[in-house]
Amino acid sequence: MKTGMLNKITDVPGVKVGHATIDSGKVHTGVTVIMPSRENIFLKKLEAASYVINGFGKTAGLVQIEELGILESPIALTNTLCVGRVHDALVSYMIDRCTEEGHELKSINVVVGECNDSSLNDIASQSVEKKHVLEAIDNLSEDFELGSVGAGRGMTCHGLKGGIGSASRLIAIGDKKYTLGALVLANHGLLHQLVINGDPIGSRLSEKMKSSVATEKGSIMVIIATDAPLDSRQLKRVCKRAAAGIARVGSEFGNGSGDIVIGFSTANRTEENDKNNEVKITRINESSINVLFTACIESVSESIISALESAETLGKTMSLKEAVETLNKN
Amino acid sequence: MKTGMLNKITDVPGVKVGHATIDSGKVHTGVTVIMPSRENIFLKKLEAASYVINGFGKTAGLVQIEELGILESPIALTNTLCVGRVHDALVSYMIDRCTEEGHELKSINVVVGECNDSSLNDIASQSVEKKHVLEAIDNLSEDFELGSVGAGRGMTCHGLKGGIGSASRLIAIGDKKYTLGALVLANHGLLHQLVINGDPIGSRLSEKMKSSVATEKGSIMVIIATDAPLDSRQLKRVCKRAAAGIARVGSEFGNGSGDIVIGFSTANRTEENDKNNEVKITRINESSINVLFTACIESVSESIISALESAETLGKTMSLKEAVETLNKN
Amino acid sequence: MKTGMLNKITDVPGVKVGHATIDSGKVHTGVTVIMPSRENIFLKKLEAASYVINGFGKTAGLVQIEELGILESPIALTNTLCVGRVHDALVSYMIDRCTEEGHELKSINVVVGECNDSSLNDIASQSVEKKHVLEAIDNLSEDFELGSVGAGRGMTCHGLKGGIGSASRLIAIGDKKYTLGALVLANHGLLHQLVINGDPIGSRLSEKMKSSVATEKGSIMVIIATDAPLDSRQLKRVCKRAAAGIARVGSEFGNGSGDIVIGFSTANRTEENDKNNEVKITRINESSINVLFTACIESVSESIISALESAETLGKTMSLKEAVETLNKN
Amino acid sequence: MKTGMLNKITDVPGVKVGHATIDSGKVHTGVTVIMPSRENIFLKKLEAASYVINGFGKTAGLVQIEELGILESPIALTNTLCVGRVHDALVSYMIDRCTEEGHELKSINVVVGECNDSSLNDIASQSVEKKHVLEAIDNLSEDFELGSVGAGRGMTCHGLKGGIGSASRLIAIGDKKYTLGALVLANHGLLHQLVINGDPIGSRLSEKMKSSVATEKGSIMVIIATDAPLDSRQLKRVCKRAAAGIARVGSEFGNGSGDIVIGFSTANRTEENDKNNEVKITRINESSINVLFTACIESVSESIISALESAETLGKTMSLKEAVETLNKN
Repeated sequence: MKTGMLNKITDVPGVKVGHATIDSGKVHTGVTVIMPSRENIFLKKLEAASYVINGFGKTAGLVQIEELGILESPIALTNTLCVGRVHDALVSYMIDRCTEEGHELKSINVVVGECNDSSLNDIASQSVEKKHVLEAIDNLSEDFELGSVGAGRGMTCHGLKGGIGSASRLIAIGDKKYTLGALVLANHGLLHQLVINGDPIGSRLSEKMKSSVATEKGSIMVIIATDAPLDSRQLKRVCKRAAAGIARVGSEFGNGSGDIVIGFSTANRTEENDKNNEVKITRINESSINVLFTACIESVSESIISALESAETLGKTMSLKEAVETLNKN
Repeated sequence: MKTGMLNKITDVPGVKVGHATIDSGKVHTGVTVIMPSRENIFLKKLEAASYVINGFGKTAGLVQIEELGILESPIALTNTLCVGRVHDALVSYMIDRCTEEGHELKSINVVVGECNDSSLNDIASQSVEKKHVLEAIDNLSEDFELGSVGAGRGMTCHGLKGGIGSASRLIAIGDKKYTLGALVLANHGLLHQLVINGDPIGSRLSEKMKSSVATEKGSIMVIIATDAPLDSRQLKRVCKRAAAGIARVGSEFGNGSGDIVIGFSTANRTEENDKNNEVKITRINESSINVLFTACIESVSESIISALESAETLGKTMSLKEAVETLNKN
Repeated sequence: MKTGMLNKITDVPGVKVGHATIDSGKVHTGVTVIMPSRENIFLKKLEAASYVINGFGKTAGLVQIEELGILESPIALTNTLCVGRVHDALVSYMIDRCTEEGHELKSINVVVGECNDSSLNDIASQSVEKKHVLEAIDNLSEDFELGSVGAGRGMTCHGLKGGIGSASRLIAIGDKKYTLGALVLANHGLLHQLVINGDPIGSRLSEKMKSSVATEKGSIMVIIATDAPLDSRQLKRVCKRAAAGIARVGSEFGNGSGDIVIGFSTANRTEENDKNNEVKITRINESSINVLFTACIESVSESIISALESAETLGKTMSLKEAVETLNKN
Repeated sequence: MKTGMLNKITDVPGVKVGHATIDSGKVHTGVTVIMPSRENIFLKKLEAASYVINGFGKTAGLVQIEELGILESPIALTNTLCVGRVHDALVSYMIDRCTEEGHELKSINVVVGECNDSSLNDIASQSVEKKHVLEAIDNLSEDFELGSVGAGRGMTCHGLKGGIGSASRLIAIGDKKYTLGALVLANHGLLHQLVINGDPIGSRLSEKMKSSVATEKGSIMVIIATDAPLDSRQLKRVCKRAAAGIARVGSEFGNGSGDIVIGFSTANRTEENDKNNEVKITRINESSINVLFTACIESVSESIISALESAETLGKTMSLKEAVETLNKN
């Protein structure tokens, strides 16, 4: 399938991503914010779903998405021990934003995902603060950076330097054109499992590097965005296919890995305080949904690889590029 | 809330119910078929959902309802050990019906629910046959019988004679009028738990009748129908409220009770072989859904009571009427 | 069933509860902490489960409980917009506590539940701070207060003043004795729905008080503790029965109500860094589980009533006691 | 990982598999029975779980497995439209068997899975009868046949002849040795997606064979057996990893594919009518579970490939062997 213009999740119109990266002494961490639409998402909510591949994770906000099938806040990604303060900062931000727009916010379901960067970050310092969340929001853009940035700063993927990755696919169903994009915070997988485009490069690297990490302790957060008109049930089906995308790159969804997918569609909006008794929504004919599954699987696989290709060596955790050079050297 | 004209699930336009009752020696069982619409439901599927309150049950057909959110067959209810042959009969019936209408049926998800009538029926005889399923279909009507008929023939509810019950409620949202109806196959609950309209009559009856049944082994199947435009997610939310309706009549959802709810809306149809790439559906504004919850709770409570009030004494299992007379006598 | 000594969740040995209450100007809110065991729960985790009755809620920490079936942190309850900062405070507290005990904490799944007290509290002020969480922990005791305290300070239940309630039941299975206790943060229900011990007092109160609240916007958090040896699957079954307990007091689980149950058993511990390859656990024979269901239903019902009976009038929100007096006056 | 002696699911001690194959005119179908233990499984139930990867399927029996975490019947696999009669035959068989062993059977949850073989079988003839189920049970053995036999007779996998496949892996955790085995009824996937051991052979075959099948209509049933002591929650986690095994062979879990996994452990038995109030069970330390995940993924992948390698050309549906020969010829 063809990729979108930027080959990022931001190829889906309205979606923006921003990072704040924190590097200071032993602290290598950050926060990444995915803003799903140009409008205030609390006032114009989006159809959404989540899927937990492996629930050894601390993501907040999924209960309400599961019940109502809607997303009403930006999605923030950070490290495991900063979920609370990022959650708090997002709530504050949304209170302020709604107040500015004349809406008194009394309740909101914010969504915060996480991976554990403790192998490269002094995680117990809980270093992400409200200012970093606001900085990430200030940095929102379509052509955002990939690799060791934002929440991806301290992440490790398949034994190599991981972080933020993204990709997108263009979809045609009949005469309609849509885009599906993925963003991953890749902190999962073991080195020997790594497969890139069918090549089990991980087993060669693992032998060469005498990697001794035997237990997967990482996680992967996957965000799926599309402008195809899917309802929450359909979005959950699409989200589930992210597992196939991750599996293609070799992961076995280890016990300690929190592998969580959140998806949203920008095509149907639910207005806060909509006074209509009935609402019309559009959804893809179920028998046309396979192309969205394929787009999701390809985007997720490529997102993981893009994270590996974009990330740079940090401390003893080698980038894929450096690892391949080492492999080729001798 | 006001009841519908018949105060039965068939107040929802298009819904019909038919029974076949089997009485012969130790055999007291049967089958009840709920036909959700006038049209061939395989060709014009309905939005649907299920909810398992307690899964000690053998209902077939829920996997696909959960995935696709649609119902594509009639729903049949019978005894626990006849699920297979009723399933087979429904498949045969649908093959024949589709063939007559020019459609070659190669796959169908039929739905068969059950309760265990072994306290009044020689259940191991597996006495329900294909002819009984066809008989129930022949008997489809709007003003169907309640009580010890069809699948309800051998059922026991709160220690008294149970069986088929039904009720309905009229709903107004803005200027729109809808109907929600329930049908139950009531075979659950212990005598001392029984509460009718707030009156804990079961504790008095239990003392009087020296009932010694200590363990709930029954089950309740609940079918919810509505012409309000709900999608499958919303229908699942409505189905979940059936638990409150059952609880109001005193049940504690005992370990051995298969308490299962299936709901459908006749308002949105998914055509087999629809060639459109996008489909428009209507759904209730979520903030108007509470009245459907109330309608469900009231309909389910009243359905259970209607089963108890309609059923007649069978063997040693007393009807509610006879039990109350016994209570009042002394 | 008989109640425990205190008739509170703390009748389960090892369980303690503490509050911090905040009252200042328009701010009426707080935090309540449930400490499930005397030992550091991160190092000795407990079997646990959760059940979402209605997911219009923001509880954090359920994903991992669902996957692993264990609880590894205290449970905190607070208002909707303070989930993040209470989450953060709990993480900090656990980092400190583990450090003191010689364990370097790098990951933890803390659990924070909430209800929305915005009708009595200036919720947008996000007034709960880390010091309040620590204060609640300092206040941990077995004979904790009920009513308008801690997280219950600003809560409203069935149109009356709500808050913290609790109750317990003694269980005998064969020659074994167990206790099951419940704690609720009751902020749910409409006045006209209120039923106390079968008496629909809410309809009389509603008429008298000309209550015009038509839409349930509240929530209820339910915590279930027991020393009976249940595994996570069994605990989920017990948690599910909380819905029957809530329904008995009249709630219809309105759309806007986040009705969430978290349960744990203190009988089986999972040690962090257990080196055994196989673990032996004890569980209740499934056919003996009904008495736990009954204990849960009774404890939850009585907990809600205890919240109503303990809470005092705040502003225009009358206590049950005052409402009953008003009713009886004329 | 090392394979078991037979490299089949029957390497797990006690597990046997039998087929009945039906070939007559346009009818090419059958039934396969997996017998999980030597003892009467209704009287000595096994810990079990299921996982629905994609629920476009008609498997019966999952509701109770999900609730109770146990398996109490053999598992039968057949074609989509024969689920009912195979269900009925299994119930009859178990009634007879229990009667012989002095137990009066009044309730049983039998498990029947299916795939749709209508591209090679006159499925509307509903050709599987009770005698075939009994024949499959008579044929139970450890060294059972693979490929186009039993339920696999008419199945198509990745555009080639599919059917029954199986594989196993030996597991060592500390000084304990276990076996995990998989059996698949492979009827899923598109030709161009097929990947064998990293080689995307499907894309070459697809081009060569000008395959025009664009929509996945098949399904895959996966049965996982192990003698490692897992409880139902852990078994569900293992079952979930089957998705990675299927994905490795290229499937994208198409909309119309019912992809369903059922797993059981032979290590913990629940006796019908156990009179103990508490039960002790053994489970794997969660932190040792990864090797079971790997064993599951490898066994499932290899099972699919073994089905493809064992199946023979039927009608226009080429075997993998013949397809590869065609590819190599020119």
